[in-house]
Amino acid sequence: MDDRIREHARTLVDWSARIEEGDDVVVDVGPDAHELAVAVAEELGERGANVVTTYSSSEVTRAYLLGHDGDFDADPEFKRALYANADAVLSLGGGRNTTETADVPGETRQAYNRANEGVREARMETKWVSTDHPTRSLAQQAGMSYEAYRDFVYDAVLRDWEALAQKQAKVKDVLDDASEVRIVSGADTDLTMRVDGRLAVNSAASVDYDSHNLPSGEVFTAPYATEGEVVFDVPMTINGRRVRDAHLKFEDGEVVDHAAAQGEDAITEVLETDAGARRLGELGIGMNRGIDRVTDNILFDEKMGDTVHLALGRAYTSNFPEGHEDEANDSAVHVDMIVDMSEDSRIEVDGETIQENGTFWFEE
Amino acid sequence: MDDRIREHARTLVDWSARIEEGDDVVVDVGPDAHELAVAVAEELGERGANVVTTYSSSEVTRAYLLGHDGDFDADPEFKRALYANADAVLSLGGGRNTTETADVPGETRQAYNRANEGVREARMETKWVSTDHPTRSLAQQAGMSYEAYRDFVYDAVLRDWEALAQKQAKVKDVLDDASEVRIVSGADTDLTMRVDGRLAVNSAASVDYDSHNLPSGEVFTAPYATEGEVVFDVPMTINGRRVRDAHLKFEDGEVVDHAAAQGEDAITEVLETDAGARRLGELGIGMNRGIDRVTDNILFDEKMGDTVHLALGRAYTSNFPEGHEDEANDSAVHVDMIVDMSEDSRIEVDGETIQENGTFWFEE
Repeated sequence: MDDRIREHARTLVDWSARIEEGDDVVVDVGPDAHELAVAVAEELGERGANVVTTYSSSEVTRAYLLGHDGDFDADPEFKRALYANADAVLSLGGGRNTTETADVPGETRQAYNRANEGVREARMETKWVSTDHPTRSLAQQAGMSYEAYRDFVYDAVLRDWEALAQKQAKVKDVLDDASEVRIVSGADTDLTMRVDGRLAVNSAASVDYDSHNLPSGEVFTAPYATEGEVVFDVPMTINGRRVRDAHLKFEDGEVVDHAAAQGEDAITEVLETDAGARRLGELGIGMNRGIDRVTDNILFDEKMGDTVHLALGRAYTSNFPEGHEDEANDSAVHVDMIVDMSEDSRIEVDGETIQENGTFWFEE
Repeated sequence: MDDRIREHARTLVDWSARIEEGDDVVVDVGPDAHELAVAVAEELGERGANVVTTYSSSEVTRAYLLGHDGDFDADPEFKRALYANADAVLSLGGGRNTTETADVPGETRQAYNRANEGVREARMETKWVSTDHPTRSLAQQAGMSYEAYRDFVYDAVLRDWEALAQKQAKVKDVLDDASEVRIVSGADTDLTMRVDGRLAVNSAASVDYDSHNLPSGEVFTAPYATEGEVVFDVPMTINGRRVRDAHLKFEDGEVVDHAAAQGEDAITEVLETDAGARRLGELGIGMNRGIDRVTDNILFDEKMGDTVHLALGRAYTSNFPEGHEDEANDSAVHVDMIVDMSEDSRIEVDGETIQENGTFWFEE
């Protein structure tokens, strides 16, 4: 086994999920994440954790959804109980075809997501962490060879997380004191959001930092009262469909108009899921310089240095002070989209520029 | 997809597990059973069942067990709750190496089995069915090409189960009225067992027949007060180790001596699991003539026509009249071993021969 797989597993179990003896851990395994699952199982055994492995295959999901009439039972107890009784959920992504669910009708997917909202909430109450094992399918989506893609993944995952956390703390401090953030990029993006009363999260790939992705490397908050327009010029895949140059227009915090150069129907579907899907749930500032290229995988792309991402839908309660969690935007979806900030761009906080063309004030 | 895979899935879901709308179904997927999992998921979707897919990999299990110090938590609630709230559990076997756990110490495996006894009991309260997807690993264990092995599996699985059930009913009737069964084979096997007060099960690959294996094709009961000696002349693999000509001597219902031409330590380990592991939990008479050769896979071998199998350990409560289930032999293990009855052999019931050299009285 490649030593980096073991190192990935150790980082996931210790730094990210902070697994302790006796923890009840669900390990969700993609079909091609098998090797990482073996390494994670060994680490969990060594720490005296209890393990249930679930199988996450988009081919299986597609077959089930296409077979079903769409009238799904809400939150089946056997599924809810698994997560409600778990201390941690480690998702090891690794499929064989990132577009496998492209022919599942959007309304079927939405109905299934809505029916499983309680299950998802139970899962999010745990120490959950999502990561990806490098697969040939993800290499293909990135337009890279498998060997080069593996190097890319481990460069992004096996970092000095402690050092990055310290750097990100500076940006968190600025956002915590801020009232308004403005994102300006090129001719078409000029968006203003309120962030007062919200807490920024220093997302350093660990549940101890309210961070649930490995890799991470971003600072994010939960904006509201969004006004203006934005073009997401980093291409991405949403529900199995390619989306390019999605354009959203906000008024009074809600999307009032949308378009895209490609994949507009995927955006339409997301927006129609529920009322919360028309509002932003997240503003994130990517700060992982180990991620040096777009690979069309949101887990990595949104963390890339010199980018900003916005998510339609559900907000993370970690962005709200205690007692204010119910102010978090509620939705069955959380769909991230990215703006390249490396050129002709700036981030303003209460009128002061904190990043220009990808360079932060403390990096000048 | 090979049409036989879909037919296998339909047989499993409809004939075997009798899945109904709204059933909560755990589908346990082996790494190489993926295709069957896709077909099963589609069938379950069509029937409006709810699904959780778990991942069953001997490589993952081995890594976990070798990492662990052996002091396992008993019946972790998150795992128990999944099965306790499920209506059915469909196990789709399909690994890549049947000897993967060969280097896991026996005491570790035993300790893990004991710690998970409540989980296993919860699972056995459901409509559980175990089947195997044909894999290259199972073909190799059988000494067959992959293509020939697939033909073998589907010949065994895709049968007229209704017709076989009617034939097996004759044998069940005889056993239900019997006090004593005697198995005689070659020079070394002469074993006598009591079966009065027990119910024989007409195991026709359906939970409606108290049968939990696909394929099935056997009639089994729960013997006691076993006396005599038996040699299991059909080779098999137990806990990843090859066992040949296992020889057991019974006195007063318990194993008092054992030996084997190969793999004796595997038998020793089984016997040392707990007190119940030294007693028989099952006597089965194989009647599936679609299975025409030994493939070193107990799920198939024990159902083969012209064989008898005995299991050390746990008895099935289905062999006991209502209110007498607590008389079932209790153990963390259930290990089947097989005697070839095709030559120089007979089964006697209360002194009358019901099968001689593989031919039943009603087949003469």
